[in-house]
Amino acid sequence: MEGTDRLVTVPGITPNGANAAETAQALRLQFRLGSLTEQTSGLAPGFLQANLAILPSNAAADFLLYCTRNPKPCPLLSVSNPGDPTLPRLGQDIDIRSDVPSYRVFRNGRHVDTVGDISALWRDDLVTFAIGCSFSFDDALQRSGIPVPNVSAGTNVPMYVTAIETEPAGPFSGPLVVSMRSFKPADAIRAITLSDRYPLAHGAPIHIGDPAEIGIRDVTAPDFGDPPTIAPGEICVFWACGVTPQLAIGRAQPDIAITHDPGHMLITDLPADATL
Amino acid sequence: MEGTDRLVTVPGITPNGANAAETAQALRLQFRLGSLTEQTSGLAPGFLQANLAILPSNAAADFLLYCTRNPKPCPLLSVSNPGDPTLPRLGQDIDIRSDVPSYRVFRNGRHVDTVGDISALWRDDLVTFAIGCSFSFDDALQRSGIPVPNVSAGTNVPMYVTAIETEPAGPFSGPLVVSMRSFKPADAIRAITLSDRYPLAHGAPIHIGDPAEIGIRDVTAPDFGDPPTIAPGEICVFWACGVTPQLAIGRAQPDIAITHDPGHMLITDLPADATL
Repeated sequence: MEGTDRLVTVPGITPNGANAAETAQALRLQFRLGSLTEQTSGLAPGFLQANLAILPSNAAADFLLYCTRNPKPCPLLSVSNPGDPTLPRLGQDIDIRSDVPSYRVFRNGRHVDTVGDISALWRDDLVTFAIGCSFSFDDALQRSGIPVPNVSAGTNVPMYVTAIETEPAGPFSGPLVVSMRSFKPADAIRAITLSDRYPLAHGAPIHIGDPAEIGIRDVTAPDFGDPPTIAPGEICVFWACGVTPQLAIGRAQPDIAITHDPGHMLITDLPADATL
Repeated sequence: MEGTDRLVTVPGITPNGANAAETAQALRLQFRLGSLTEQTSGLAPGFLQANLAILPSNAAADFLLYCTRNPKPCPLLSVSNPGDPTLPRLGQDIDIRSDVPSYRVFRNGRHVDTVGDISALWRDDLVTFAIGCSFSFDDALQRSGIPVPNVSAGTNVPMYVTAIETEPAGPFSGPLVVSMRSFKPADAIRAITLSDRYPLAHGAPIHIGDPAEIGIRDVTAPDFGDPPTIAPGEICVFWACGVTPQLAIGRAQPDIAITHDPGHMLITDLPADATL
């Protein structure tokens, strides 16, 4: 009963077969109340999750341009008005100051704190960017019977800084970060065609095959996440990754920036395969 | 004026920007009259072209089942009634006995003749199968700015008999034949996602990477077509091929079978990216 007691049941969108207690809105309320702080991978299946970047309005126009110029790593779901903590396009009653389980705070591009609530840091000039993440696509692969190695292993996806430069916008620039999943060739083809249908989850991959061709010297030593297990005969497939904008923020060094803590996403009310 | 005189202008479907004299119907009429007998690659751009298989009705049910069980090599566009030489779903006024530039005649599974007209061979029990071909997809790749090596080189696409068995139906069985195009990795990804949108042109590929994994010992020595040129860093991409049913017909050995002469396709009135 303890697990049940933790869940707050509220009226909300209930997708096919999902328990009402698992709806996006109910989970966000628990994050808001601090009664749940865990990673969101596997939570609220069927709901679209999002990467988060919050920036001062004097940096927002350039960051918006940066996302627009780099849609594969930064597929934009929604952008708020300055100072407005709601995201009505993404969910009923979202308060972005409290509804994400864990946040990272950056000062002048440096990660200085990890917190469960940013109400105390909120300012009238802060603009929220919600950016698509790859969970929708991982789910779709698994539902299609294509095993995703890191999901099967219960580890984080391996991520790599590549030699590919993103297209800069104002102070925002930096290398493209990619995530890697390996598959048997026939599954790699299906993973490519399937991910192409999820442009808001980074879409089709940007590279297949030899990691060295995009500047990855050692595929067994990722820059973020956990080392991969690549079975004999499997082919490496590389997708643009939502960590890319975090590196661009690090380079732009705005006086303040707030992102989700990796793995601790914003759970939206939208279906996982939504197209905007 | 000689080139113009060769063309018979008839009322017909005129897709975006195409000259009326280049319409499918006008070309078919020239094939019918014998005033044109050339390969159809590059003719009537924007119109769907088709592989052809004509079989006696006592083999037709099994061949229909064979195509249904192997949709990647044998995407069915249309099947006629026995003895009916028209294909109204594919084009106005098609007479399949004369409207293809060149035919191959098989007796008991052996290729015995190549002719420009099969009216003298026609029987009341012959059933026509029109099967999708890869021209639509090659066109789409080129229009997307992705060079197709054999199209650029003006050679035939290399084709290989694989170690993959098709699913048999009655006397029809045999290995899957594939065509191969090589690309830079980023273009290979785009070729995969693009071809997936053309299920009637064999859809997404069936293999990428190491040819040996599907039983191809020497990729430089294709079983049909011309040897490929594979540039350094390119990845091999393999699609199911419309030659597959010809091998199955060879194995089934019906008393008579008629196919198009490779490269000499049926030009339909349908748009190249039609979905049935």
